[in-house]
Amino acid sequence: MPVPRPVRRNSTSTYILATILVVCFLYFFFGDDDTLAAIPNVASRQLLKSKDAASNILSPPSLPFRKPAKLDPGEIPPPPPVVHYKMNNVTTSGDPIGNRETVLILTPLARFYQGYWENLEKMSYPHELISLGFIIPKGKEGNAATTLLQERIAITQAPTNKNRFASITILRQDHEPSDLYSQAESERHALHVQKERRSRMSRARNSILFTTLGPTTSWVLWLDSDIVETPPSLIQDLASHNKPIIVPNCFQRYYDEEKGAMATRPYDFNSWQDSATAQILAEKMGPDEILLEGYAEMATYRSLMAYMADPKGASDHVVRLDGVGGTALLVKADVHRDGAMFPPFPFYHLIETEGFAKMASRLGWESFGLPNYYVYHYNE
Amino acid sequence: MPVPRPVRRNSTSTYILATILVVCFLYFFFGDDDTLAAIPNVASRQLLKSKDAASNILSPPSLPFRKPAKLDPGEIPPPPPVVHYKMNNVTTSGDPIGNRETVLILTPLARFYQGYWENLEKMSYPHELISLGFIIPKGKEGNAATTLLQERIAITQAPTNKNRFASITILRQDHEPSDLYSQAESERHALHVQKERRSRMSRARNSILFTTLGPTTSWVLWLDSDIVETPPSLIQDLASHNKPIIVPNCFQRYYDEEKGAMATRPYDFNSWQDSATAQILAEKMGPDEILLEGYAEMATYRSLMAYMADPKGASDHVVRLDGVGGTALLVKADVHRDGAMFPPFPFYHLIETEGFAKMASRLGWESFGLPNYYVYHYNE
Repeated sequence: MPVPRPVRRNSTSTYILATILVVCFLYFFFGDDDTLAAIPNVASRQLLKSKDAASNILSPPSLPFRKPAKLDPGEIPPPPPVVHYKMNNVTTSGDPIGNRETVLILTPLARFYQGYWENLEKMSYPHELISLGFIIPKGKEGNAATTLLQERIAITQAPTNKNRFASITILRQDHEPSDLYSQAESERHALHVQKERRSRMSRARNSILFTTLGPTTSWVLWLDSDIVETPPSLIQDLASHNKPIIVPNCFQRYYDEEKGAMATRPYDFNSWQDSATAQILAEKMGPDEILLEGYAEMATYRSLMAYMADPKGASDHVVRLDGVGGTALLVKADVHRDGAMFPPFPFYHLIETEGFAKMASRLGWESFGLPNYYVYHYNE
Repeated sequence: MPVPRPVRRNSTSTYILATILVVCFLYFFFGDDDTLAAIPNVASRQLLKSKDAASNILSPPSLPFRKPAKLDPGEIPPPPPVVHYKMNNVTTSGDPIGNRETVLILTPLARFYQGYWENLEKMSYPHELISLGFIIPKGKEGNAATTLLQERIAITQAPTNKNRFASITILRQDHEPSDLYSQAESERHALHVQKERRSRMSRARNSILFTTLGPTTSWVLWLDSDIVETPPSLIQDLASHNKPIIVPNCFQRYYDEEKGAMATRPYDFNSWQDSATAQILAEKMGPDEILLEGYAEMATYRSLMAYMADPKGASDHVVRLDGVGGTALLVKADVHRDGAMFPPFPFYHLIETEGFAKMASRLGWESFGLPNYYVYHYNE
């Protein structure tokens, strides 16, 4: 006897790869600039027509190798596209630089903050081991973010810049930004909009993850576009703990009127250790209800990492967590390959990054946090 | 208060990308053979040293563009690696050939059946739109399967073969085949080993999926290595229904001693419509228990698609399903991108492909079956 099923929602049926979707792959050679020229940005597309550019077009693993439109007389045709990746040396270890481990940084981008890019550029992890992936919603604001991003890419990825990143992938959605993740600060934390907002955010995270994760990716660093300050050694610091999932403490700098000076305060409350109260709350909930953190009307009495911060504590102090936030989050690629994604639906009454930690734990992977290691969120 | 968490299992901690893992990417140019040469197989690796091969190495999206070890004097260096994919024309429709939609065929491969490959070769969907992905376990049997696979690849992907596939990806696991999916037929259906077996199969499916799904993949066809006969028009027939998830009826040919003639019988019992009995059974189960189909000791009274087959019925007759099998299964790539994977843990008391259908339904995607459209499983 068939059970009635929900009708597919229109808002997601054409979520990705719909009519207006544009995907840009930007690969940049790293190495000797004198032998090779790299094209700096998306706008330089016409340069592909030049002789040394037209002879080849790269393809991702699931695409056929493309033939150039036309070969100039005497031009060498593209090479036979057979590539072997010996994975013997692909590790995910506490010494990622020593082992030349590749990192994929994934960012859902609704607004472009110059501070985000500047912070990214300052990262001391070898940039030739870093690939970037962005997912940007449709519409005016998404277009503006794309334009600003590409302006910075043009400079950062210039052939003369020894510090440019290995590759950049940009996915454009067919979503308007207003209903995804670009709401005004005041609105977007309202309890009633959180579930839908975080559900959509989950789908965006899953889409960029499934599309860009490659066979030799060692680590995935989730980094929100409004994280404007991290230690330059963020990647190697987090990786040094050699944990499947590890999250720093996300704070925010603000001007303290009383003290007349800059100060910091906790920002992300999604990293926590579970409580008996929260478990009892969850048991009483309907199957589609979710627990959210940081709301007075839903007191969970979970132990929040935000409040575990100790100014005198060691920055490498590690705690176990049951839920994690995603503003900055380092994950071993194997955790994702095993199947851990960001549930857009209530999963044990949890969604998005908190649901991800729960799903990872069901797969046998544990989550950890660094209460005294800080990253900073933009202050609107 | 931290809740005790399960310790990460060793068997999965190095599941993929471990020391002995080898990933081979085989890209094959399709088009004019007179302008380009393609390397036929994995064994032809040394050909990469030839002049027209060494000038470039392809990279998947999350990898940096690689520099060749050495450029011959006068040789043209690799092109600046900037590629744009305008996705406007990437659709997932009922007319996949007309819309030039790419299909990724994914196969967990423990044993290589010549019949599987021969059936694959006969598929009438344009081969230049088909990419293949295999995940093969470690060990003697996996090595043997890899060798046989590569022998066939060498012939099928020869430059002179106009019918070769767009690209082939092979992932080698660090798993021994015995505990994964190559058990003898008699053993591997035993109820007590099903949960562990299908949990591992889920992780294998997730690994190849997360690693190979690209930005322009329209469809994913899951095709088990022991499916040795399908209609040549399998892909376009399934896609013509334009459903998010659609599964044919998996039967098996056998010699009927009584009738003294060949006959067919149902093989895969994982495609079903849910029943009140099964739901009551599930309600009484512990959180980690699973429902399995086709076992007398666990009578679910679900409506099995295997028994809906009607020799006089139309082959395009469609039914709604709540659980699907994965021996042959066509999925819109967006379903996976949204986050639908194969749960290795009990998800609503379901795992693997049946859990996948449930997870997809939680994401708003419905599953369908074709009771009178057959594919055939190898008969040991």
